[in-house]
Amino acid sequence: MSASVFDHPWLGGLFGDPEMAEIWSAERQMAHMLAFEAAWSRALGACGSVDAALAATAAEKIAAARIDFDDIRAGMAQDGVPVPRLVKQLQAVVGPEAVAAVHKGATSQDVVDSALVLVLKDTTVLLARRMAELEAALIELDARRGETPLMGRTRMQAATEITVSDRLRPWHQPLAAHLERLAELSPRVERVQVGGASGDRKALGKDAQAVTDHVAAELGLASADGAWHAKRDGVAEYAGLLSLITGTLGKIGQDICLMAQQGLDEIKLSGGGGSSAMPHKQNPVGAELLVTLARFNAVQLSGMHQALIHEQERSGAAWALEWMILPQMAQATARALATAQGLVGNIDRIGTPD
Amino acid sequence: MSASVFDHPWLGGLFGDPEMAEIWSAERQMAHMLAFEAAWSRALGACGSVDAALAATAAEKIAAARIDFDDIRAGMAQDGVPVPRLVKQLQAVVGPEAVAAVHKGATSQDVVDSALVLVLKDTTVLLARRMAELEAALIELDARRGETPLMGRTRMQAATEITVSDRLRPWHQPLAAHLERLAELSPRVERVQVGGASGDRKALGKDAQAVTDHVAAELGLASADGAWHAKRDGVAEYAGLLSLITGTLGKIGQDICLMAQQGLDEIKLSGGGGSSAMPHKQNPVGAELLVTLARFNAVQLSGMHQALIHEQERSGAAWALEWMILPQMAQATARALATAQGLVGNIDRIGTPD
Amino acid sequence: MSASVFDHPWLGGLFGDPEMAEIWSAERQMAHMLAFEAAWSRALGACGSVDAALAATAAEKIAAARIDFDDIRAGMAQDGVPVPRLVKQLQAVVGPEAVAAVHKGATSQDVVDSALVLVLKDTTVLLARRMAELEAALIELDARRGETPLMGRTRMQAATEITVSDRLRPWHQPLAAHLERLAELSPRVERVQVGGASGDRKALGKDAQAVTDHVAAELGLASADGAWHAKRDGVAEYAGLLSLITGTLGKIGQDICLMAQQGLDEIKLSGGGGSSAMPHKQNPVGAELLVTLARFNAVQLSGMHQALIHEQERSGAAWALEWMILPQMAQATARALATAQGLVGNIDRIGTPD
Amino acid sequence: MSASVFDHPWLGGLFGDPEMAEIWSAERQMAHMLAFEAAWSRALGACGSVDAALAATAAEKIAAARIDFDDIRAGMAQDGVPVPRLVKQLQAVVGPEAVAAVHKGATSQDVVDSALVLVLKDTTVLLARRMAELEAALIELDARRGETPLMGRTRMQAATEITVSDRLRPWHQPLAAHLERLAELSPRVERVQVGGASGDRKALGKDAQAVTDHVAAELGLASADGAWHAKRDGVAEYAGLLSLITGTLGKIGQDICLMAQQGLDEIKLSGGGGSSAMPHKQNPVGAELLVTLARFNAVQLSGMHQALIHEQERSGAAWALEWMILPQMAQATARALATAQGLVGNIDRIGTPD
Repeated sequence: MSASVFDHPWLGGLFGDPEMAEIWSAERQMAHMLAFEAAWSRALGACGSVDAALAATAAEKIAAARIDFDDIRAGMAQDGVPVPRLVKQLQAVVGPEAVAAVHKGATSQDVVDSALVLVLKDTTVLLARRMAELEAALIELDARRGETPLMGRTRMQAATEITVSDRLRPWHQPLAAHLERLAELSPRVERVQVGGASGDRKALGKDAQAVTDHVAAELGLASADGAWHAKRDGVAEYAGLLSLITGTLGKIGQDICLMAQQGLDEIKLSGGGGSSAMPHKQNPVGAELLVTLARFNAVQLSGMHQALIHEQERSGAAWALEWMILPQMAQATARALATAQGLVGNIDRIGTPD
Repeated sequence: MSASVFDHPWLGGLFGDPEMAEIWSAERQMAHMLAFEAAWSRALGACGSVDAALAATAAEKIAAARIDFDDIRAGMAQDGVPVPRLVKQLQAVVGPEAVAAVHKGATSQDVVDSALVLVLKDTTVLLARRMAELEAALIELDARRGETPLMGRTRMQAATEITVSDRLRPWHQPLAAHLERLAELSPRVERVQVGGASGDRKALGKDAQAVTDHVAAELGLASADGAWHAKRDGVAEYAGLLSLITGTLGKIGQDICLMAQQGLDEIKLSGGGGSSAMPHKQNPVGAELLVTLARFNAVQLSGMHQALIHEQERSGAAWALEWMILPQMAQATARALATAQGLVGNIDRIGTPD
Repeated sequence: MSASVFDHPWLGGLFGDPEMAEIWSAERQMAHMLAFEAAWSRALGACGSVDAALAATAAEKIAAARIDFDDIRAGMAQDGVPVPRLVKQLQAVVGPEAVAAVHKGATSQDVVDSALVLVLKDTTVLLARRMAELEAALIELDARRGETPLMGRTRMQAATEITVSDRLRPWHQPLAAHLERLAELSPRVERVQVGGASGDRKALGKDAQAVTDHVAAELGLASADGAWHAKRDGVAEYAGLLSLITGTLGKIGQDICLMAQQGLDEIKLSGGGGSSAMPHKQNPVGAELLVTLARFNAVQLSGMHQALIHEQERSGAAWALEWMILPQMAQATARALATAQGLVGNIDRIGTPD
Repeated sequence: MSASVFDHPWLGGLFGDPEMAEIWSAERQMAHMLAFEAAWSRALGACGSVDAALAATAAEKIAAARIDFDDIRAGMAQDGVPVPRLVKQLQAVVGPEAVAAVHKGATSQDVVDSALVLVLKDTTVLLARRMAELEAALIELDARRGETPLMGRTRMQAATEITVSDRLRPWHQPLAAHLERLAELSPRVERVQVGGASGDRKALGKDAQAVTDHVAAELGLASADGAWHAKRDGVAEYAGLLSLITGTLGKIGQDICLMAQQGLDEIKLSGGGGSSAMPHKQNPVGAELLVTLARFNAVQLSGMHQALIHEQERSGAAWALEWMILPQMAQATARALATAQGLVGNIDRIGTPD
């Protein structure tokens, strides 16, 4: 049913994150693509390239269109992109008289990349909220239990006694830094993509900037003084932050796994997992999952950086590599944050046992 | 709907491979897990650990059980493995009198890893068939067109004239080597996993080897003279071969992309993809896809090797990393083979144009 | 003589970057470590923990110490860090009366990580200078040749005619973004590391912040309101930027390789490489090297993110992984920038030939 | 002095492996290249392409030539390969009358890749010896201490009591499998590379196979029924085995780190590392190093598989990526084996303390 742990009927119970899944769902992606196409039609109307009323009607129909996914799927296999078939469907939706108001001067990458950016914008909101919540929960834990003694461990060996607070700071301080990074990179990412056939906006003629500005404004994105079709640094930077976040959480997970070991007993969690062979066992499933997700994202990031080598005006090969990887990194990051929030909430005791 | 290109409503049209998807489907995985549990029950009966007739009845019921996936999913989130809930369901299926014939002495990893191996065995059959077909198609192409002249290109520059045959040999010769590798590694992979709680088969007592042999025979796997629960080299080696295969196909794809460039025109393909902005264009979508899938698998392989660091008797973290990666590598490999077969079938002309 | 292409007797001719090699040289690393230890001694004097005059003399001797690298090397094999032996040497250098002024309250990670940050600070200066120069050279090229027509190519196929300027923008615009990123992350990276034994600065008692501030000021780094010994996000983020830079340059290199193909001839470079078999050939060696270095850094970045899972107060394993990778990424980035600068300077013609 | 931990003045004390460094040294690489060129000259003589006596004299001079590395280095920067300058030096060495006996019909890749294979052959011998020794040491340890009880740990939690033998089997059994793999892949790797300009051996005419056979025999390699210049699966497979080996050792290292924790004390090692802040500490430096080297190789392997996408008759970019990565993987593997051997020799006690 699914090769993906995020969507798998039962593995999804461990790996899936419903909120992030909704943000990256095909339905939502399609809604963003339709929003782009509707904004595009209105922009053509606004700049006088087509009749404004005709454009407005077309835009309304586009926004409300019910798309035949199976047809898009068939086109995908043929064209490598969903847009040619989507445009055909939209042309049928608006009717022959309004065909000129549909997609004119745009290209596949404009639609797909602008929709991606809208997904990333929603992703950012969710991640920022969860990071802030997790940071607060950890600071609260620090306030409550920070003075409890704990054996400091370097190179996995007992070193000198520290406090729980010393252990917790490297858990929560990077979250503040990640929020700072997210704020810094968002303006580099949340930009509309408008390039047209070869990315030069030539088909839009003198209206190029006006159309771009209109579409950007309607979608709530920044405009851009040129296409970013072949500049993937924003997307790769975003992926890097996803992996920095899961890396921080992976460290938390690894620490908790180590603290939970019998013989050390430096943490007591409620709600651990069971074993089919040893019903008495309490496994730190969530803590292990944080390690898994961190290693997963660290692996995937490499692929996003390989995709920076995006040849000429559009690389089919490099672009499709992003599609394979980035959605999974976002899912993994969201799941890691939710898992970490759950884990922190389940800490019954932390620090050297009395 | 799906974060995964393999299952995505429309991206699946490009990336999905129905045959391989079926092999890795949740339903098939569950069928393998039930086959393991049924074989296990019969093995317990055969060695006298439980009454043979009781065991046989239990095995039949297990094999025919209808599993509640939602319940397994709920357990997954709690336990990090599907088996504790599965066993509970099976205990209910066989009834209280036969509970002793269910899963006794086995553990989660026995079920999940043995099921994985059954999936890999089917995967191997499909890959071997497609590789042999692709090799034959390329050799046939070589026989038909091999003597056509072609400009040899080194470092992306025209070098000296070669023939199409010289270009094709590095396309098909590695396939023979991959088939050889597949034959060599299969005995290292197609082994039943039986370990019990901590992998020492202690709960099985004197029956340990007999149970293992019985289960192996019934599942069509090799027995094993010990659990391989914490030895992941077979699985990682398998992943390595998947990436070697897609690497070979990625080279083919890259070559075809380069040959198809206007101005060089060294190949003519039917069935290329369209563009939403330039209806006249013929894009070598399949060839690009081969490059994408090769780079994808090359990235993923790193994660399978990170998972070799499988601590102690069972690493939840490293094991789950395999689940995230290996199914996707298999899908990507199958899709790449099918794509390459399609591409070769679509070659209308190859070599320097007359 | 060397397993590393950067230092190899002849491969170094292609891969080596003398300026960056100097910044990362063992001698310079040692100078930074001595600068830290000298600053530390003075800080102990300043806060009254040891006699200020004694501390000042010790600091001078430390700064001027001639270190026996072979002894450090022997210690490295034993201790996994260079500092225990270094401290022994420094104790001998200052003499028994000043032993209390040496390294007291510091730990290995303080010395090694603070020295690393000093190296990164120099690295930043070099990269920023070269990026600015390269950006200027590309903008100047754009000004000179930007209006020349060029066939736009999407999915490696001829699309519509664009201009050289359209091709060049995705080459130089990301450099401005990288400079922006560098400015943003530098404050997160250029912080002194002071933690002591388990990172809690406990051995420094009430002087902890004063010592930290003193050392930071003397080294030209920001102070830090706690150790960052187990928070590696700054270092990983830095590595991410290195790979973003080489990714941008890899795209330039890939584009140039494609443009230089005979039959397309969209670029003419002076100074290409020769072939032992075909003396007439001009290979775009520099352009290929940009692709190599981009793929190399994209691979390495994965390792820097794996190292984020830095367990407890200090992970020997994760920390050492950074040592293996980060210096090479810096070398690769510097070499890529120098190569790109050379390539741009060697462009004799760009755009569709007349 | 060195960006590489393997060659670094003091880090080399931890990471360096003198035996493997010697095998991969520039001097040895050059000796192999000269051996190839000498064999080539003799082969030309043997097949009558040049006068046999002239060829024999040339071969002797080539074999004894003192090569100016600085000149090769200068050529490297220009040509991207060392061979054009090397051939010029050899032509000067043999004198004008024997120029026809030097390198005629060969190309850079023939020399460099054949030399690589000779290095790999030596690498294989060293790795096989160390793996066999390590396996024997572990089996001996198992024989001595295998019956000692030990707490089995799954998901990092105490599970059920096992024996030391149960823990040790996943340490040594994969070594036997690795030796099997090494034997299987060696024939795929230890083949001479002979292709000439574009890999078609055309310049050798009817003598192509005879020359290839002669050179192969003289170098102790298998001949090949065609060039493998653009088929890199053998090299990538070799890299995969290196990472499988370090993965097995990384698991050993991780287990030892965990066993050595105070509070568990399941192993007692002599010869651990010291700390600059806590002189009493014994750090399991070697065990950590095994984890580091395993993660390093797992990262690098991704790059070797990216390099499988080796376009057309020779990819400068993909080929050079191998040069950056493979030597380091070999060094890391050798160092890991030596480290594991040392660790096993230092086990004073293993299993639950009395």
